Amino acid sequence: MKGKTISYSRSQISHVMMPNEANAAGNVHGGEIMKLMDTAAYVVARKHSRCNVVTARVDELEFHHPIYVGELVTCKAELIFVGRSSMEIHVTVLVEDLNCDMSTRTALTAYFTMVALGDDGRPTDVPDLIVETPLEQANFEKGRKRYEMHKKRRNSQV
Amino acid sequence: MKGKTISYSRSQISHVMMPNEANAAGNVHGGEIMKLMDTAAYVVARKHSRCNVVTARVDELEFHHPIYVGELVTCKAELIFVGRSSMEIHVTVLVEDLNCDMSTRTALTAYFTMVALGDDGRPTDVPDLIVETPLEQANFEKGRKRYEMHKKRRNSQV
Amino acid sequence: MKGKTISYSRSQISHVMMPNEANAAGNVHGGEIMKLMDTAAYVVARKHSRCNVVTARVDELEFHHPIYVGELVTCKAELIFVGRSSMEIHVTVLVEDLNCDMSTRTALTAYFTMVALGDDGRPTDVPDLIVETPLEQANFEKGRKRYEMHKKRRNSQV
Amino acid sequence: MKGKTISYSRSQISHVMMPNEANAAGNVHGGEIMKLMDTAAYVVARKHSRCNVVTARVDELEFHHPIYVGELVTCKAELIFVGRSSMEIHVTVLVEDLNCDMSTRTALTAYFTMVALGDDGRPTDVPDLIVETPLEQANFEKGRKRYEMHKKRRNSQV
Amino acid sequence: MKGKTISYSRSQISHVMMPNEANAAGNVHGGEIMKLMDTAAYVVARKHSRCNVVTARVDELEFHHPIYVGELVTCKAELIFVGRSSMEIHVTVLVEDLNCDMSTRTALTAYFTMVALGDDGRPTDVPDLIVETPLEQANFEKGRKRYEMHKKRRNSQV
Amino acid sequence: MKGKTISYSRSQISHVMMPNEANAAGNVHGGEIMKLMDTAAYVVARKHSRCNVVTARVDELEFHHPIYVGELVTCKAELIFVGRSSMEIHVTVLVEDLNCDMSTRTALTAYFTMVALGDDGRPTDVPDLIVETPLEQANFEKGRKRYEMHKKRRNSQV
Repeated sequence: MKGKTISYSRSQISHVMMPNEANAAGNVHGGEIMKLMDTAAYVVARKHSRCNVVTARVDELEFHHPIYVGELVTCKAELIFVGRSSMEIHVTVLVEDLNCDMSTRTALTAYFTMVALGDDGRPTDVPDLIVETPLEQANFEKGRKRYEMHKKRRNSQV
Repeated sequence: MKGKTISYSRSQISHVMMPNEANAAGNVHGGEIMKLMDTAAYVVARKHSRCNVVTARVDELEFHHPIYVGELVTCKAELIFVGRSSMEIHVTVLVEDLNCDMSTRTALTAYFTMVALGDDGRPTDVPDLIVETPLEQANFEKGRKRYEMHKKRRNSQV
Repeated sequence: MKGKTISYSRSQISHVMMPNEANAAGNVHGGEIMKLMDTAAYVVARKHSRCNVVTARVDELEFHHPIYVGELVTCKAELIFVGRSSMEIHVTVLVEDLNCDMSTRTALTAYFTMVALGDDGRPTDVPDLIVETPLEQANFEKGRKRYEMHKKRRNSQV
Repeated sequence: MKGKTISYSRSQISHVMMPNEANAAGNVHGGEIMKLMDTAAYVVARKHSRCNVVTARVDELEFHHPIYVGELVTCKAELIFVGRSSMEIHVTVLVEDLNCDMSTRTALTAYFTMVALGDDGRPTDVPDLIVETPLEQANFEKGRKRYEMHKKRRNSQV
Repeated sequence: MKGKTISYSRSQISHVMMPNEANAAGNVHGGEIMKLMDTAAYVVARKHSRCNVVTARVDELEFHHPIYVGELVTCKAELIFVGRSSMEIHVTVLVEDLNCDMSTRTALTAYFTMVALGDDGRPTDVPDLIVETPLEQANFEKGRKRYEMHKKRRNSQV
Repeated sequence: MKGKTISYSRSQISHVMMPNEANAAGNVHGGEIMKLMDTAAYVVARKHSRCNVVTARVDELEFHHPIYVGELVTCKAELIFVGRSSMEIHVTVLVEDLNCDMSTRTALTAYFTMVALGDDGRPTDVPDLIVETPLEQANFEKGRKRYEMHKKRRNSQV
């Protein structure tokens, strides 16, 4: 299987938050944002693998700023690390208040791990990730460490 | 009020179509797509006017290709013409089948006319549109003709 | 195939607008209304053709009055013109404020063009439209002109 | 307060059942139908009382036939009995399969009791119900009996 | 088929009411609560029968207290009576205001009758209900009376 | 402020997954599950603090098993650690296939960190957490370590 670059699958999802996505306190429900982030990670993983994918993990999801109804939310997602069948994707949520200029802020970041599934519903191999810059390489190595740490912990639980 | 360029407010909304947006036949509900297009036009009009906006008209909305559940839909929207308080926005819907490479197709196009409202709920002036290329200028003139035709027809109904 | 009258398929959809259909400004999302109109046109086209139908065009959709949460919205739809496989439907949206008597107003009108699809997913013939009054005949002729204009424009784009 | 006839507030809500209203087995969720019926009763009660109303009771809600995705559902609602602040409304659900002619069937019936609330959130008086035919009178008397039975039972629980 | 106890299938569904479940007046839509109750009854009936089930009747659904956005709603459901293929389930809705201690109140109660369906879509036998206490026995007898009354009325309508 | 025990705020949310919560591949959307988990954590944090709360972090969210439409999902949530205004909550998602006995499995686990907000929208103090068993004490210490690690990392980013 031919490798693919990070830019090949880099994607974004964008959405204006509506009142039906508010929580009981009237702000945007955190869960709605996680859903958008999950969808952005899904698009990246689908493009890289071109097969069905499921979410396996979410790590270090941090809300840096609250999000309000009426704001334009853009989830940017790109691959960090690729294992045999798993893909770690970094998702950044940018928020823009449509009432004023120059207002974009980073509201959340997180790592999503998606797993590619074959037609039998079992994990299947995905293309290698071609890293093109020293920064991509450094991030890839950090991703590999997280991947191995999760794997070790999972095995120790068995 | 200082004019603004077309690129200043150019925007896009993107979304993966989900099964809860299907119609009774199992394809994506045309109305869901119109809702996304309306939101894209809303973002452009909010950015240009920086005030509350409402949809006033939709014209020449054409479905060139059907859209299926699981596809990535991107609505690109940009200003064509600006009157005193009304803004005509062209919306193009690009659809990408996530199962295969090189699959982007233009599924719909339409013109949305949005009107800016002041705090009193009445139409309010918006910045001029700065056109920068001969193509933008030509489109602006066509938009002006549509604007004047709608205005005349509305007056003749009174 | 036996022809059918306009009254045979005339239909209406009605709905009380709920807070989850509001846009970010708290009014009813224009896209929600378009979705209701699309559904009303869908019902008419299904009744006339008795087969699967998709939306092909929307023209001259005009918001004459804003719509608020809590209002009763009724979309009345009826056939104007029928081609081989396409059906042009006029949709009128009546809105009633439930707080007071005598409050019905026409909030929107539009033309929806629906196309009948056979089991192979390709356009299929629909019954002729039987026009019964001079007004129906006059509207039919206007619909035919719009139909031919759209067809010519589409061909000139190829 | 001047009385109002039954026909004054008689109303209907209609809707095409969509896949996002299906239950886990793929048929229309019974709860979605109850929600439509509740809305139809709400419209009648709002029109008769012209004030805020809440659901107080539902009785003898019977599903005579299942309802499928893609069917046109019409909830017809009309007043049966009016007490001081409570209104008993009969709701009939008609279902039409859009695939074939002559297919309307009565899928459900139920009695909804709505209570009018004043600005203080407490029950408030509503106009009398003007009954115009012997059948309306007979139904009114049956409604009164149900009303008094519920009242007695409620008091005996205190 | 071996009988099952009431406690075997006793279930609860719980949910925080969100703004998108409000009605036009801003309170929780009665229909949303009925939908939750229906789901709780569905779970009980599925557990007792282990086959597909549909709602057949709702009786004596009474709103004792209003419910507000942001409150925690718990629907407790348990079997009262079991016929050949029908199951009568009592549903109690408890509501808890999350702002303060000691606030749980019973907001609604109702009887839901569910019918088990076989693979052919026709009513199918369900296990007997094992009643274990005198109270369960007394409730079972009352349920049997309601069951026979509904049956008689249905037959007299034919 | 008087301390509160872990059992005081321990809560659960339960829900039958519906087709409108499926993703494009027809399985339950991972984001819908995260939304339910977020709501369960919200209930616990509201009960402990009795004030408005927002999600600040999600860590180590792991999908152990896929979840299908029609399954009963129960999110159990309880406090692990409490700082000045932040509360770490462990959420466990149990899934039950309603078609068969003895089928409950743990589908997901995660740590949610919620922050209590005062009326001014700024973090506010919450009651201490009273730990009652050696296990609760050990978990509390692990939570404190995560809390301090996140704090240190955040400060090092400034």
